[in-house]
Amino acid sequence: MILRGDMRAVVIDTPGGPEALEVRDFAIPLVRSDEVLIKVTAAGLNRTDVIQRGGRANLPPGATNILGLEVSGTVEQVGESVTGFKPGQLVVALTDSGGYAQFVSVPEGQVARAPQNLGLVEAAGIPEVAATVVLNVLMTGKFAPGETVLIHGGTGGIGSFAIQLIKALGGNVLVTSGSDEKCVQARELGADLAINYRTENFGEVVQAYGGADIILDTVAGSYLDANLKAMSTGGRMITIGKQGGASANIDFTLLMKKKLTLTGSLLRDRTPAKKREIMAQTVKIVWPLLESGAVQGTTDKIFALDDVVAAHRYFDEGTHQGKILLDCR
Amino acid sequence: MILRGDMRAVVIDTPGGPEALEVRDFAIPLVRSDEVLIKVTAAGLNRTDVIQRGGRANLPPGATNILGLEVSGTVEQVGESVTGFKPGQLVVALTDSGGYAQFVSVPEGQVARAPQNLGLVEAAGIPEVAATVVLNVLMTGKFAPGETVLIHGGTGGIGSFAIQLIKALGGNVLVTSGSDEKCVQARELGADLAINYRTENFGEVVQAYGGADIILDTVAGSYLDANLKAMSTGGRMITIGKQGGASANIDFTLLMKKKLTLTGSLLRDRTPAKKREIMAQTVKIVWPLLESGAVQGTTDKIFALDDVVAAHRYFDEGTHQGKILLDCR
Repeated sequence: MILRGDMRAVVIDTPGGPEALEVRDFAIPLVRSDEVLIKVTAAGLNRTDVIQRGGRANLPPGATNILGLEVSGTVEQVGESVTGFKPGQLVVALTDSGGYAQFVSVPEGQVARAPQNLGLVEAAGIPEVAATVVLNVLMTGKFAPGETVLIHGGTGGIGSFAIQLIKALGGNVLVTSGSDEKCVQARELGADLAINYRTENFGEVVQAYGGADIILDTVAGSYLDANLKAMSTGGRMITIGKQGGASANIDFTLLMKKKLTLTGSLLRDRTPAKKREIMAQTVKIVWPLLESGAVQGTTDKIFALDDVVAAHRYFDEGTHQGKILLDCR
Repeated sequence: MILRGDMRAVVIDTPGGPEALEVRDFAIPLVRSDEVLIKVTAAGLNRTDVIQRGGRANLPPGATNILGLEVSGTVEQVGESVTGFKPGQLVVALTDSGGYAQFVSVPEGQVARAPQNLGLVEAAGIPEVAATVVLNVLMTGKFAPGETVLIHGGTGGIGSFAIQLIKALGGNVLVTSGSDEKCVQARELGADLAINYRTENFGEVVQAYGGADIILDTVAGSYLDANLKAMSTGGRMITIGKQGGASANIDFTLLMKKKLTLTGSLLRDRTPAKKREIMAQTVKIVWPLLESGAVQGTTDKIFALDDVVAAHRYFDEGTHQGKILLDCR
């Protein structure tokens, strides 16, 4: 039986600022045979949502104009071929779109049991940051304990989670942040070194520290030179954002001499099979650390679904530390 | 007992053109405990020699101003801790320098038995090209059978060997060359497609072919745009030369969208332990193919050691197809 009924969801019809977002009524989504229908408790905000809001997103096949890439909630219904979940279970999920809603259908491979010892609202902020760090730093970057990881934006959603996770896995974590206050907060989260990029040249500071084996790069263009300087021999940089511009001059001499590896990645456009693999690795590696308390959720602020415009305005201000969530109940 | 005596060798004292090379008398090198002293039959020319001749080389520790990175010959003497070789054996070797000489001492890990069914002179041209392709395309690039590899300079020393090796390992090989005549030769060596880069846009041609999974890049700067276009999703580019300039503008949007990996590499400055590993892989993978005839040596021309100036002039002309060797006997 396919459920139908009304739900509230946030759509973007005409690209623009926060005010371009609209909360409207929709039919509850159909559940395909391999999907889990989740009654959403909360949804996390991500930069990719802002990019989609502005009309600059490269949407994966099947994505809709309902925003939202991660949720927590309760299983409402499962498709015929779903074996891992049943109605009533508490779950989190990586969604291809549609997370800012009261219900969302998600391929089974992108759903995971909710981690214990974490409120279900707060759990909505875990899937994207956890999967991003697992995919890029662990799977692609091949992080090994004892290595040094440089994270740009040490107190944002990804940064505040990545600091804790990499420390828990035995790494050294260096971060850049835009104020001395944020640097203090990054240190409190466990960063070994926090560099105020407005007052210091992070390339030189990291080099003096001994260099970074891995850089999780959300800036691209304007940071390329300093990033290349910051890396140790054999260093790997994974670019997942372009806040500093989409292009820059690359120095092949340094690339060859230090045997550096540069790669780029997006989580959203991965195939369902790849997302299943990433999700499985994330549950395996991150959930035990969340459940032991070694890694904690880092929620900054929770808005009601109907206040999504205010939530996006707050995101755009860039002063948040940790995740911004929408309560979709 | 340490051998001493006179030998002829080619040195570069003052950087310059081919005429800056001098053939002079030297003492036969000392043999350290982990080294093999080789009586050189022949030495191969490599672009790195030309770079060192011009004073632009980044010499690894212990390198001398006697040129030469690969030799064939006969074991003359072995150091105390050497277990794999004994005097009289026919060998080839990757040298850190000193190959353009009548004798050279080489760490045991960089020496291998000479492949059978190949003349000992011709064998001098194998170590650098074979190790370069094994290190960069197989070990770093993680080539898998069925993948498509793009090689720039399809009829040079590396290209003419790489075409055969990658075909023998079950790959598709696309090459670029600078003339229609060279393209015909590359096709005769087994290339699936040879592109005259003077008359065609190789980025578009390779894209139309279905894209390259791996690019062995000897050009860097001026080819970066077309290389990024040429790669398939998940493509890996390994830059080992900068004939087209040391820098270029990189498009992070393409890097992220296609999940490309760019890395740079030099063979010469690898540690002895890494060179040992590369040499072992090379013997394991390449020697059987040389001995079955699936891959053949590609010697273009052999000069006497005393004619090294003429040999370098000929190299600089860039019309050679395959390896240029020095007969050091």
